Amino acid sequence: MNKYLAEIIGTFWLVFGGCGSAVLAAAYPELGIGFAGVSLAFGLTVLTAAYALGHISGAHFNPAISIGLWAGGRFETKELIPYIISQVIGACLAAFILFMIVQGKADFNGVGGFASNGFAELSPGQYSLVSALIIEIVLTAGFLIIIMGSTDKLAPAGFAPIAIGLALTLIHLISIPVTNTSVNPARSTGVALFAETAALSQLWLFWVAPIIGGLLGGVIYKLLLAKKA
Amino acid sequence: MNKYLAEIIGTFWLVFGGCGSAVLAAAYPELGIGFAGVSLAFGLTVLTAAYALGHISGAHFNPAISIGLWAGGRFETKELIPYIISQVIGACLAAFILFMIVQGKADFNGVGGFASNGFAELSPGQYSLVSALIIEIVLTAGFLIIIMGSTDKLAPAGFAPIAIGLALTLIHLISIPVTNTSVNPARSTGVALFAETAALSQLWLFWVAPIIGGLLGGVIYKLLLAKKA
Amino acid sequence: MNKYLAEIIGTFWLVFGGCGSAVLAAAYPELGIGFAGVSLAFGLTVLTAAYALGHISGAHFNPAISIGLWAGGRFETKELIPYIISQVIGACLAAFILFMIVQGKADFNGVGGFASNGFAELSPGQYSLVSALIIEIVLTAGFLIIIMGSTDKLAPAGFAPIAIGLALTLIHLISIPVTNTSVNPARSTGVALFAETAALSQLWLFWVAPIIGGLLGGVIYKLLLAKKA
Amino acid sequence: MNKYLAEIIGTFWLVFGGCGSAVLAAAYPELGIGFAGVSLAFGLTVLTAAYALGHISGAHFNPAISIGLWAGGRFETKELIPYIISQVIGACLAAFILFMIVQGKADFNGVGGFASNGFAELSPGQYSLVSALIIEIVLTAGFLIIIMGSTDKLAPAGFAPIAIGLALTLIHLISIPVTNTSVNPARSTGVALFAETAALSQLWLFWVAPIIGGLLGGVIYKLLLAKKA
Repeated sequence: MNKYLAEIIGTFWLVFGGCGSAVLAAAYPELGIGFAGVSLAFGLTVLTAAYALGHISGAHFNPAISIGLWAGGRFETKELIPYIISQVIGACLAAFILFMIVQGKADFNGVGGFASNGFAELSPGQYSLVSALIIEIVLTAGFLIIIMGSTDKLAPAGFAPIAIGLALTLIHLISIPVTNTSVNPARSTGVALFAETAALSQLWLFWVAPIIGGLLGGVIYKLLLAKKA
Repeated sequence: MNKYLAEIIGTFWLVFGGCGSAVLAAAYPELGIGFAGVSLAFGLTVLTAAYALGHISGAHFNPAISIGLWAGGRFETKELIPYIISQVIGACLAAFILFMIVQGKADFNGVGGFASNGFAELSPGQYSLVSALIIEIVLTAGFLIIIMGSTDKLAPAGFAPIAIGLALTLIHLISIPVTNTSVNPARSTGVALFAETAALSQLWLFWVAPIIGGLLGGVIYKLLLAKKA
Repeated sequence: MNKYLAEIIGTFWLVFGGCGSAVLAAAYPELGIGFAGVSLAFGLTVLTAAYALGHISGAHFNPAISIGLWAGGRFETKELIPYIISQVIGACLAAFILFMIVQGKADFNGVGGFASNGFAELSPGQYSLVSALIIEIVLTAGFLIIIMGSTDKLAPAGFAPIAIGLALTLIHLISIPVTNTSVNPARSTGVALFAETAALSQLWLFWVAPIIGGLLGGVIYKLLLAKKA
Repeated sequence: MNKYLAEIIGTFWLVFGGCGSAVLAAAYPELGIGFAGVSLAFGLTVLTAAYALGHISGAHFNPAISIGLWAGGRFETKELIPYIISQVIGACLAAFILFMIVQGKADFNGVGGFASNGFAELSPGQYSLVSALIIEIVLTAGFLIIIMGSTDKLAPAGFAPIAIGLALTLIHLISIPVTNTSVNPARSTGVALFAETAALSQLWLFWVAPIIGGLLGGVIYKLLLAKKA
C-alpha cells in the first residue's frame, strides 16, 4: 500500500505547490513570482518528491506518465488504475486544502479560475482549441521522452529527478500562456472542481491531449530511440 | 562540539541569506529580486550549507526538522535541546548582523517588519490565523517527508541537499504571501526580536505550527511510507 | 539511425522550448517570464535532453558543438554532415509547429521577429555587427570549453548535462540584448525561415561566428588546457 | 602552465558572464533580468567553469578563495602569487572585451559604473563603508566555509561545483544593493579600470574585506568545524 500513498502524497505536493504558488503568489503586487516562479514551483514539486518518494512508487504523480511508461514497457498494466485513482485523490485533496486557505484572505472574493487549465476564452492568452491540443500533445510527448531517457539504464544514475523536475519547469515556461499548462490530467481535475469558471466543461481536453502525448512519447522512445540490448 | 557550531553557522547562513535577501534586495526599485528571488535565496542557504556542513551536524538548521527527524526515528533525544539552542543562537546572531548592516543605509528609517512572520494584519496578503496554521503545518509536514525520503538509504546518495534546499525554495514560492513563510521557528525568532511590528506577539504560531507539521511529516514517513527492512 | 533521430528530437526540443518560451511567454503582460525566464528555458532544454538522449547521440543539438568537438578530437569527421543535417531538420520542425500554435491566438497579427537572431537594426538592443561577432564568438568558445572540460574523463561523472545546460542559460542571461543569443546555427536557421523581419539576410553571421567560436573552444581546450595522459 | 591558463579563462568567464549580464541585460526595458538574473549569472559562471576546469586548476577564479584555501591548509604558498596574477589578468581581459562590445550599442553614451563595486555614494542602495565592510567580510567568510566544507573528503563527491556556484548566486541575491557584490578582488579590479565613476578609489575595500573574510572562513573551517582524522 505504501506506493499508493506515495502517489497520493506526491500528487498532493505537485498540485498544492504548483497551483498553490499560482493562486497565492503569482500576481502579488510588485513582488509576485509571475509565470517564471510558478514554472519553477511546479518543477520543484516533482524534483523534490521524486528524490523522496521515487524509491517507493516510482514517482509518477500524473496519469499521463503512468500511461506513457506503460506504453513504453516500463509499468505494469494491473497498476494503471490504482495509480491513476491515487493521483486524482491526491490532486483533489490538494485543491481542497488550497481552497480552504484562500478563503482566509481578508479581501477574499472568490477563487476565479483557481489555476485551472483551459483553451479559447479560458486560455490565459486566448489560444484556440487546436493550439491547446497541439502544445499539450507535443509537450507531454517530450516529457515522456525525457522521463524514459533519463531513467534508462544507460543514463547517469541518480540524476533523473533533476532532469524530470526541471523538464516540468521548462514545459511551464513555454505553455502557461496557452493552456495554463496541464500535461497532467490529475492536476487539471483537482482544481477544475473548485474553479468558478467553466473549466470542468473543458476538462476532457486535459485528459485526452496529455494521454495521447504520453502514449506517443513512451512509444517513440521504446521503438525508435532506445538502444537495443 | 563541532556539530553545535555547525548548526549555529548553518542557521546563521539561513537567516542572514534568506531574511537578508528579503530585507536588502526584494523590493529594490526596478531591479529587485521579488518573492521569487527571496525563495531562491532561502533554498540556496540550505542547499549550500547542507553540502558543506551535512557531514558534521546533519545540517538541520531548524528546530522543526530536528523534532521531525526525532519523531521519525532519525535523531537522538539527548541532542534535541542542544541543537535547538544552537539554531536559535545562530538565527539571532544573523538577525543582529543584518540589523547593523541595514542601519548603514543613507536613508535608513527603521527596519519595519524585518522579514518577520505573521498572520492577519501581519500577513503580507492579510491571511487569517487559520490559513496561516494550515499552510505552515502542511508545508512543514511536506518538508519533513522530503527530508526523510531523500535521505533514506534507498534514495540516490548525495542528492539530498539539492532536494531539501530546493524544497525550501518551493515552500517559499507558495507561502510568502500568507505568512512570509516560516516552517522554521529559529528563523522566525531571530528576526522577530528586531522587528518594529508586533511580530513577537505572533511568534507562538511559528513555533507551534512548524513543530506540529514536523512531527506529522516524520511520523507519516516512518509509519506509512518507508519500506520495511 | 537512433542517434540521428535523437539529434532531431533534441534540437526540436531546444528550439521549441527556448524559442517557444520567448515567443509565447516572455512578454506576457505583468506575469511574463522576461529574458531570465527565456534563458532558463533554453538551458533546461539542453539539461533535460542531454540526460535523456546523451547516451544515444552525445546530445549535441547544435552544429557549432559538433564542429567544436570535432576540432577537439572528440567527434568523427564522417558524422559531421549527418549530425548537422539532423539538427537543422529538428530546428525547422520545431519552428513550424510553433508557427502553427501561435496562429491560434485570438488577436494574432503576425509572428514578427519570431525569436530570430540579429545585429544592428535587428539586435534587440541595437548592437553593431562587430559587437555581435565578438560576443557570439566569445560565448561559443566558452561554451565549447565548458563542454570539453565537463565531459573530460577527469571531471566528475554524470554532471556534464547540468554544467552544459546551465552554461546555455548563462550565455542567454548575458547576450539576449545583443543578438537575441544564437551560439547555435540550427536554432538561428529554424526560426529565421518564419520571421517577418530580414532575419534571413543576417543568418550568415549566426553560422560563421558560432562555428569560429566552436573551433576556437575545441582547440584551446585540447591543446592548452587538457592534461596530457 | 595549464593551471594558470585555466585560472585566466575561468576568471574571464566569471567577469564576462557576471558583469556582462549586469551591464548588458539587467536593466533592459520591460524584459531585463534584474538583480536576480545577475545573481544567477555570477553563480553559473562558477558552477560551469568549476565542472570544466576544476580538475585542472582547482577552479578558484578569485584571490580571496586562493588565500582562504591557503589559510585552511588546502593550497600551497608558492602558488598564491601566480594564481592571483592569473585571476587579475583574466578579469581585466574580460572587462576589456565587454568594454568593446558595449561601445557597439547604437545609443552608447558611456559605461557608467560598469558593474563596479562601491560603498557610500557608489553603493547601489547608498550603504555606508561600515555596512560594506561587514557584509563583504561575512559573505566571503561564509563562501569559504561552503567551499572548504563541500570539498571536504567527507562531503558527497562531485557536487561541490553546484554548492559553490549557487553559493555565489546566493551571495549576490543578498548583497548587490549594498556593494554591488564583490567577494572577489579580481572581479572588482577588472571592471574598476574601465568605470567612469570613482570606483578605483574604493577598490582597496574590495581587496581588504574579501581577503579578511576568506582568511576567517578558511581558518574557522579548519580549526573549528572539520572533523579530525
